[in-house]
Amino acid sequence: MRALGQNYRTIWLNADRTGVDVIDQTLLPHRFEVVTLCSADEAAVAIRDMVVRGAPLIGAAAAYGMALAMAEDPSDASLETSGERLNAARPTAVNLRWAVERMRGRLVGLMPSERRDAAYAEAALVADEDVAVCEAIGGHGLELIRKAARPGKARIDVLTHCNAGWLATVDWGTALAPIYKAHRSGLPVHVWVDETRPRNQGASLTAWELANEGVPHTVIADNAGGHLMQHGEVDLCIVGSDRTTRAGDVCNKIGTYLKALAAFDNGVPFYVALPSSTIDWRIADGVRDIPIEQRSAREVTHISGLTEDGRSETVRLTPEGSDAANYAFDVTPARLVTGLITERGVCAASEAGLEALFGGEEQAA
Amino acid sequence: MRALGQNYRTIWLNADRTGVDVIDQTLLPHRFEVVTLCSADEAAVAIRDMVVRGAPLIGAAAAYGMALAMAEDPSDASLETSGERLNAARPTAVNLRWAVERMRGRLVGLMPSERRDAAYAEAALVADEDVAVCEAIGGHGLELIRKAARPGKARIDVLTHCNAGWLATVDWGTALAPIYKAHRSGLPVHVWVDETRPRNQGASLTAWELANEGVPHTVIADNAGGHLMQHGEVDLCIVGSDRTTRAGDVCNKIGTYLKALAAFDNGVPFYVALPSSTIDWRIADGVRDIPIEQRSAREVTHISGLTEDGRSETVRLTPEGSDAANYAFDVTPARLVTGLITERGVCAASEAGLEALFGGEEQAA
Repeated sequence: MRALGQNYRTIWLNADRTGVDVIDQTLLPHRFEVVTLCSADEAAVAIRDMVVRGAPLIGAAAAYGMALAMAEDPSDASLETSGERLNAARPTAVNLRWAVERMRGRLVGLMPSERRDAAYAEAALVADEDVAVCEAIGGHGLELIRKAARPGKARIDVLTHCNAGWLATVDWGTALAPIYKAHRSGLPVHVWVDETRPRNQGASLTAWELANEGVPHTVIADNAGGHLMQHGEVDLCIVGSDRTTRAGDVCNKIGTYLKALAAFDNGVPFYVALPSSTIDWRIADGVRDIPIEQRSAREVTHISGLTEDGRSETVRLTPEGSDAANYAFDVTPARLVTGLITERGVCAASEAGLEALFGGEEQAA
Repeated sequence: MRALGQNYRTIWLNADRTGVDVIDQTLLPHRFEVVTLCSADEAAVAIRDMVVRGAPLIGAAAAYGMALAMAEDPSDASLETSGERLNAARPTAVNLRWAVERMRGRLVGLMPSERRDAAYAEAALVADEDVAVCEAIGGHGLELIRKAARPGKARIDVLTHCNAGWLATVDWGTALAPIYKAHRSGLPVHVWVDETRPRNQGASLTAWELANEGVPHTVIADNAGGHLMQHGEVDLCIVGSDRTTRAGDVCNKIGTYLKALAAFDNGVPFYVALPSSTIDWRIADGVRDIPIEQRSAREVTHISGLTEDGRSETVRLTPEGSDAANYAFDVTPARLVTGLITERGVCAASEAGLEALFGGEEQAA
């Protein structure tokens, strides 16, 4: 997608193959900087410090991290320790472990002298596959946006929560892929961007993505979506998913459930875009069985932004005597979800719906 | 209520009757300062700049503003122009006009020489009546909190949105009055405080009030309430109301509707505390008929807080190319409201419910 007028992915091998370039997402939206990762250690630090974030991108970064390790030292010991170091960067990230395992599996049977080239090739494959999955999600979601157009209404209003855009993946994104496809097809799409407190990924990342792609959009407080839906200002919602149960319950950024309730109450279609890698076939009841990460209270009590004179500054929002709690995700029950947009097509948020598209894969999982 | 260990109201005539003291609410929660208003003009500026805010407090400030005008110049011309100046301070505030009219009505028939003392007395009456109304709301709401206690659960969790505390009134508050009564009665009440973006009145004012009264509380992002309710962490919700229709629809701070939806979906009682002065007997359908104020986008794109080294600083949260929208209120349909807590008792959120408590008043309105 486009950033500052050029086409980018979020991660790529640089021209002389000495390092892997990534966009430093901790600086967005106020500064765009590409940083080069030159070792598996640097890749692990970038994952840990959220220079790169989003499950698919973390997977790709881990794959490239393994390739950097092989370029440095293709020994068995290096294969082992670099995998461990990367896995430890964000212990709960499923895609990270998956990517490390995939790289290990591909490389372990090779001669050390063959590993560097094979690793770069496999990492490129991980990245390219992610792009293909996201673009397919975009194509299927595009049709839903097209159908949501209402006669006599000048634009198609899509509401999204958090950032499930290209910055969270290698390219295209998940929830935003259909929006990019729609915009490029000439559909008059406009996006309501939930700012998504407390980390504000909507206000900082989604808004930045859309601005750079030239997609009309408006940032709103997370509180505003219900009012907009009551007044016919939202034609459909599309959000992402961090984990989807086999029954179609969706674990996504905190606050997603509230928007799903409002959509249901107002007859607004509520879609979830997800690569099938987020489906957890072992779990049916998401509210009961998905543990919800609690993050630092400081993300609620403090916030960072840009001062008038261009400095980055962090300020405290709450009084000293007040504690805060910070639940990172919530679960939207399948009954509130109109459909799941996957790389294989759109299905009902139900066991039968997922089975129809991915029958047999639950055994493999 | 208590602030820094002393008892305060939000507004009072100072000891030598030369001015009216108010708490500067623009500085909270990071600084507590009392400022003295010495003229009707200063009162108007304090209302306009939100040094004082909250419908009941705005009414009391306007009443005292009229008294200050009479102390300066008790002429008919002064009575007229000071009323106009105060009314212009926040054109949409219903309580402001009501207080100015009440003062005019009380003073216009008096000799100029009698007006100063009569005005101070009437302003004090406006303030005292507000305190009595809020304390009565507190008493009725206390019983609901008492009933919400669940056997085997150590505390009673109340969720509130925005600030409907004593800072919005002269004392006690509306939604927080039952909580203060409960805490003082020894009930183990704990409050989930929605930060209430974009103006953050929860994180700054409600949290500050509760901290100063010693009421256990936790600030949360507005996104978190649904998750808490799904997991049995909220025993009841109590919010305020800016305008209540005769059918029981409630217009309150943006985001209230989303919490009401979550409460309904999880069987959590959702109460609205309101002085009967907020009832608009002319309107039944709030979603259709209550116009929603749109405020400056800057309240969404920028935020203020305290830096590490104690300076107040404003930072931008969004990218330069992104617009924002800022809807100040939303309407919660009566079907989602468990009950209305008024100064006359608790009633159903319906025409019949309000009629039973306030029968006949709609004709007077």
